[in-house]
Amino acid sequence: MELSTIYEPVQEDLLKVNNNLSSVSKVDFPWLSEQLSYVVRGDGKGIRPALTLLSGKFYNYNLKYLLSMATAVELMHTATLIHDDAIDKSVARRGKPTIYKMWGEETAILLGDYLFAKAGEHVADTQSPRVIKLFSQTLAAISSGELNQLLDAFKLEQTRQQYFRRISGKTASLFSLATKSGAILSGAPEKSAKALEEYGYNLGIAFQIVDDVLDFTGTEDELGKPVGSDLFQGTLTLPALLVLERYPENNPIKGLFENKDKQKNIEKAIDLIRNSAIVDECYAIASEYSARACQNLSLLPESPGRLPLIKLADYILKRNK
Amino acid sequence: MELSTIYEPVQEDLLKVNNNLSSVSKVDFPWLSEQLSYVVRGDGKGIRPALTLLSGKFYNYNLKYLLSMATAVELMHTATLIHDDAIDKSVARRGKPTIYKMWGEETAILLGDYLFAKAGEHVADTQSPRVIKLFSQTLAAISSGELNQLLDAFKLEQTRQQYFRRISGKTASLFSLATKSGAILSGAPEKSAKALEEYGYNLGIAFQIVDDVLDFTGTEDELGKPVGSDLFQGTLTLPALLVLERYPENNPIKGLFENKDKQKNIEKAIDLIRNSAIVDECYAIASEYSARACQNLSLLPESPGRLPLIKLADYILKRNK
Repeated sequence: MELSTIYEPVQEDLLKVNNNLSSVSKVDFPWLSEQLSYVVRGDGKGIRPALTLLSGKFYNYNLKYLLSMATAVELMHTATLIHDDAIDKSVARRGKPTIYKMWGEETAILLGDYLFAKAGEHVADTQSPRVIKLFSQTLAAISSGELNQLLDAFKLEQTRQQYFRRISGKTASLFSLATKSGAILSGAPEKSAKALEEYGYNLGIAFQIVDDVLDFTGTEDELGKPVGSDLFQGTLTLPALLVLERYPENNPIKGLFENKDKQKNIEKAIDLIRNSAIVDECYAIASEYSARACQNLSLLPESPGRLPLIKLADYILKRNK
Repeated sequence: MELSTIYEPVQEDLLKVNNNLSSVSKVDFPWLSEQLSYVVRGDGKGIRPALTLLSGKFYNYNLKYLLSMATAVELMHTATLIHDDAIDKSVARRGKPTIYKMWGEETAILLGDYLFAKAGEHVADTQSPRVIKLFSQTLAAISSGELNQLLDAFKLEQTRQQYFRRISGKTASLFSLATKSGAILSGAPEKSAKALEEYGYNLGIAFQIVDDVLDFTGTEDELGKPVGSDLFQGTLTLPALLVLERYPENNPIKGLFENKDKQKNIEKAIDLIRNSAIVDECYAIASEYSARACQNLSLLPESPGRLPLIKLADYILKRNK
């Protein structure tokens, strides 16, 4: 199923979000404008802004505020990606050179900051101090999650709990902001806002697990970056943790983290993951979260927002990029 | 005159701001807590939070909101310094090793982001969408100013106008946010808010010019970093621009920017600035802005905030660090 089909009830409004994103790049400085239009093209999957708009469908669909919020979540997402790429020294994303690769880390830092600021301007337009506070708390959660990832890098002794704490901060927090803010801005009662928040959280966890699996099972072409990038950067994702759990002897990840035969060991690890039940196990865990997400929706009233959100929970399990 | 004397009417409340800053470092992750307490010690000059509190004295001094805002501006300032140091690869600030030096640029990027987020949380507590929007616009102005500085680095063909545009973005914008938000949060009428905004702007320009002079005339001990750092990083500040204007022949900055005899040329440039009328000329320009700042205050009603703000405009011209 195509995302555009899933997004159907909000498709037109997503185009307006894209217009907002484009207008961020219309600034006074031509060179900055070039850099900005390079990053803010709205050519991602657009899941986060779609979540905000769809979550707004259950009650009073206040387009003006929802558009501001949807724009803000996508800008925040873009800003964090730019900073992540500078931190990881990633040269490609979505098949294109990163800002870090194109203009260096100095520009990446400042351009990320600029986009955080623009996100903040849009979130201020929601006129809701509660949503604005949630927005800031989410950025704090994302940064903490990334800081934890940095701290845990190249450490072999890690628990699944640490993994879930990291992805909860770096991914699920923004998904749940997207849904909860949509609920609040459409005047949802607390119980419904909570249900949509939890839907977003569970969806985000499932999304990130699948992302982490694809990093091993996808092709470089599909991923738009080298296979096994996470592991190469020292990040133990769920598939890698399972490799460590299952193969305590002669484990290639141990070799890799000890800086021995890096290329050979990463290929071995990719091989072990692809040709074992690890992928299935990861998908089983992701499915659980996706199912929980759908259960969260059962608490909500009938709405054109419900079916797309259910389909989305299914889509994120089946996507290959 | 000591800053603590100038701050007298808000001294007690500045301690509360410092308490807020300390509590930012009380987080779940001990290692993050260590990093945060290292940066958020409130041992800077505290000019920005003082500006917010003093600007709040002219009308209804709403302590709760003003404290949130004063904390937010100082956190934003700290976050931008951390990112700046990572960009400039500066190893020392205020006589201490920078975050960049201590923990590397990855941590510097994420810690800066975390502090932007915390600043955002505090600004959300002001409950004022207008102030929140101004806050975001200021961050956008600061990032643009820094991006311009990056773009202009090591370029000899520069105008004073470019210099003023840069320092207006990177410094004066935050000073004027500090004062204007104090005015708005205390219910100042528009005309007074505008006057305090302009006071902040003019003070910020004067402050930065003096900062840029001290970078050449101070001692390494006073500056807490090497003399001539700006020039070494390719940034043409006002004193350097005047050197280029006055000595078109055999100019040491030209040599420096062409990467020739760097150490010798930077010493020559420092010497030229120290032993010429350039310093006086810079101070004359800074004084003009400082005087304009004081004129802006004449539009405001009598208040215990006025005299400290006048003294501050004087202090920033006389400070030696």
